[in-house]
Amino acid sequence: MRYDTAVIGTGPAGLEAAITLKVRNKNIIVLGSKASSEKVEKSHVIDNYLGIPHVKGSDLTKEFLSHASSMGVEITELRANTVYAMGDYFAISASDENGEQMLEASTVILATGVVQTKALPGEDEFLGRGVSYCATCDAALYRGKSAVVVSYSDEYESEADFLAEMAEKVYYLPVYKALAGEDIAFKHDNIEIIFGEKPVSISQNEDKKMSLTTDKEQIVSDGIFILRSAVAPDKLVPGLETEGAHIKVDRKMATNLPGLFAAGDVTGTPYQLIKAAGEGNVAALSAVEYMSKA
Amino acid sequence: MRYDTAVIGTGPAGLEAAITLKVRNKNIIVLGSKASSEKVEKSHVIDNYLGIPHVKGSDLTKEFLSHASSMGVEITELRANTVYAMGDYFAISASDENGEQMLEASTVILATGVVQTKALPGEDEFLGRGVSYCATCDAALYRGKSAVVVSYSDEYESEADFLAEMAEKVYYLPVYKALAGEDIAFKHDNIEIIFGEKPVSISQNEDKKMSLTTDKEQIVSDGIFILRSAVAPDKLVPGLETEGAHIKVDRKMATNLPGLFAAGDVTGTPYQLIKAAGEGNVAALSAVEYMSKA
Repeated sequence: MRYDTAVIGTGPAGLEAAITLKVRNKNIIVLGSKASSEKVEKSHVIDNYLGIPHVKGSDLTKEFLSHASSMGVEITELRANTVYAMGDYFAISASDENGEQMLEASTVILATGVVQTKALPGEDEFLGRGVSYCATCDAALYRGKSAVVVSYSDEYESEADFLAEMAEKVYYLPVYKALAGEDIAFKHDNIEIIFGEKPVSISQNEDKKMSLTTDKEQIVSDGIFILRSAVAPDKLVPGLETEGAHIKVDRKMATNLPGLFAAGDVTGTPYQLIKAAGEGNVAALSAVEYMSKA
Repeated sequence: MRYDTAVIGTGPAGLEAAITLKVRNKNIIVLGSKASSEKVEKSHVIDNYLGIPHVKGSDLTKEFLSHASSMGVEITELRANTVYAMGDYFAISASDENGEQMLEASTVILATGVVQTKALPGEDEFLGRGVSYCATCDAALYRGKSAVVVSYSDEYESEADFLAEMAEKVYYLPVYKALAGEDIAFKHDNIEIIFGEKPVSISQNEDKKMSLTTDKEQIVSDGIFILRSAVAPDKLVPGLETEGAHIKVDRKMATNLPGLFAAGDVTGTPYQLIKAAGEGNVAALSAVEYMSKA
C-alpha cells in the first residue's frame, strides 16, 4: 500500500496540508500527535489568525482538530525516524510503542516545526555510535545492557517503557519535569528516574561506555537516547538541503528533493500560525501538481 | 503626516497584514473596500481555511471584517492610482469620489489581487495618451470634451458622475451589467449608458480622437477611461519587477523595491485564501523588520 502523501507533523501547517489534500481526494497518512501541536496548545492568546480573533491556543487547537476531523483526517501517533528518497517514491521508517514499521508514499510534506533545543555537545559526534533518536527502533540492541533516556516530552514515557522490556537498566531524565513531586507511572521497575537535572554534554569513555554529563553528575551507560518532538530536518531526511536549522524551500514549498515539500516553522521565520497554515496549503497543492505530472 | 505602512487591498492578505501591523502598534492606512473582497464574498463554500470549516464566502468575509474592526483597523475607500518609490518613503496617489490626494508611507504592502481581465488590445499602447485608469484624477482635462468609461464594477459609478461634472458627454459602458433592465442612478444626465456591449479594442483616429470598438459599434470620444478593481501591478508601481501578471517576491514577500512588500493572489498561484492570509502576515512582519533597520 502506497499513500499519495505522507504528512509529517500535526501543527497548523500539517493539518492545513491534510485538509487541502482531502479536498483533492488524496489518500494520505498523517504522522504526529492527536493533540496537534504542544506549541500552539500552550500559546496564551493569538490575535492575528485572521477570522478567529483573540483566541487562546488551547481553543484554537480544538478548532483545528475539529476541522481536520470533519474532513476525515485521521492522525496516527507514529513518529517518523527517517525519510528515504527512493526516486519515484519515499520510504519512511516510523515507530510507536509497538515498534518500527516502514511506510511508502509518492510525496511527503514535512511540517515538523522547529527544533526548540540545540544539540548537546557530543550529540552530533556520537549519533549512530552510542547516541540514538529512536528507542523503539534500537531497543533490541540493548538486551542485558544499560541506557540513558534524555526525554523532552511525556509522550516518550511509553518509549522508555518499551526499552526497559529489553534493557537491564534504564535511566530516564525527564527534561520537561524538574521535580519529583508527581511520579511518572512506568510499567517496569528497572527504570530509574533522574529528577531535577539538566543534560549538559555527551562523551565516550575509553571502554566505549557512553557518558552523559548533567549539571549535577555523570551517568555512564551503554547508550544514550535523546527523544525530542522535532529532530533536525537533515537528520530526518538524508540529502535534504537546509539553511541553518531550516529546510530550504522555494515559493512553491518545494525542497531540493523532487516530491518532498515542507511547510511551517521548519521552513523559517516568522514563526506564526497563519503563515504555517498558508504554507501547508501551498505545499499540499504543489504535491498534487507534482503527482499529476508524474 | 507619514504612515508607517500603507496596505493596499482588503482581501485576506491585506486584512491579515493590517491586523498584524496593529499588533505591532504601527500607524497604518488601509486602502480598499469596506466590503473586503468581492471575490471572497462571492465564493460558495470554502472547506480548507483551517479553523473555520465549511464556510460560505459571505460569512467568512464577515468574520474577516469583524476581526479587523476589533483590532482597530479602519478601511478607507480610497483607490491607489500610482505608488512612487521616493527612496526612503513612498508617495501614493489615491482617489475617491471627492478627487485625488497624495499620501506618504514609510513602507507599502500591495495586496491588490489578480487582474481578472486582460488588457484590451491598444490599452497598453495608448495608456497616458488617451487611455486613463483614473477618472477623478484626469476629469479636469475633459472640460467641454467627451469620454468613454469602460467600467468593470458598480463601485465606479460615482467616478463617472464626477467626470460628468466636467465633461460635456460621458459614455458609460458597464461591463458588469449586461441588460438595461435596472437603471443606474446617475446624478448627471449627460451620461449615456451603453448596455449589453463588450469592449473589444482601442485605437486612435487620424484626428487624435480615441475610438473604442465594441462587439456592436465604434464609439469615438476624446478619451477612454478603463476602471477595474485591480490594475496590473507594474502599472500601479513604476519600476516594480513582475513575472507575467504577478509581482516577483522572495520568501519574505519582499519585492525588488526596498520597503515595498506584496502578498496574496498578486504574488502568484495558488489563489487560496489561507495562502493569501499567511503571506499578508509575513509581509507585515517583513515591513516591521525593514522599519526597525531604517
